Amino acid sequence: MANYAGHMSKRLTGREQEVWHAWKRAAEMVRMRVGADITAATGLSDGDFGVLTRLVDLGEGTLRQNELAESMGWHRSRLSHHLTRMEARGMVKRHSVDAGVQVRITAAGERAAAASRPAHAAAVRRHLLDLIPSEDRASLVQLLETIASGPDS
Amino acid sequence: MANYAGHMSKRLTGREQEVWHAWKRAAEMVRMRVGADITAATGLSDGDFGVLTRLVDLGEGTLRQNELAESMGWHRSRLSHHLTRMEARGMVKRHSVDAGVQVRITAAGERAAAASRPAHAAAVRRHLLDLIPSEDRASLVQLLETIASGPDS
Repeated sequence: MANYAGHMSKRLTGREQEVWHAWKRAAEMVRMRVGADITAATGLSDGDFGVLTRLVDLGEGTLRQNELAESMGWHRSRLSHHLTRMEARGMVKRHSVDAGVQVRITAAGERAAAASRPAHAAAVRRHLLDLIPSEDRASLVQLLETIASGPDS
Repeated sequence: MANYAGHMSKRLTGREQEVWHAWKRAAEMVRMRVGADITAATGLSDGDFGVLTRLVDLGEGTLRQNELAESMGWHRSRLSHHLTRMEARGMVKRHSVDAGVQVRITAAGERAAAASRPAHAAAVRRHLLDLIPSEDRASLVQLLETIASGPDS
């Protein structure tokens, strides 16, 4: 564990803030730029793309609405409003099942997801992968995995 | 610029996906865990905390609603619904001004923001800063700043 000066202080120190702000800004910028490129290329919003690709990749086309909400990190009501709009555009269908709602991708949704993959790959390369020097890649992945595992691992 | 094998392929390669998923998972986990700790300590949601601290830090208590939406990376309508709920809880007030809406923090909102700072500092340390070995900190900040600057810088 690193030992930061000012660890007990009630506000982040200047040096701590530097790390935190760089982290937040990079995360937010990559997320926004990748989303904007996909939208420009395909008309899908960030949320549309997230829903469609999760249905395909995690659920082979079908997920419970609450599983989908959890995997997106979205509040149930936010996802529900979003799915209502996607359903109106013919991309997904919802069905009541015992004690829940199942979300299924339509043929049109599958086509939109498939068509968006190349734009997604290009955007991830442009806005993240190409900016990481190859010699730093392995150590960055290791650090990111440590961070993702969290303090209790 | 790094040179990735399969750079022209239409899907991310396995090694590219490894970096991308590690990045997304770390970003998402830190965001969720910091938010959860603040909520547990103060009752403020991630969004409440974001609104209150931006009003204080960026606007000395007052911001245009569209500036606030932009700085949070939120859609206007999402922020508007959120502010309606915060206004009902007495944390902010909105005023129409020429061609827009101004959002002002209340005294109760200021107290909530101030009370949440120690929980925020502790959460950022626990879920991010303490997981970065001190000797890696400077190079990580540099890499994050390169990524945040983007491909066109």
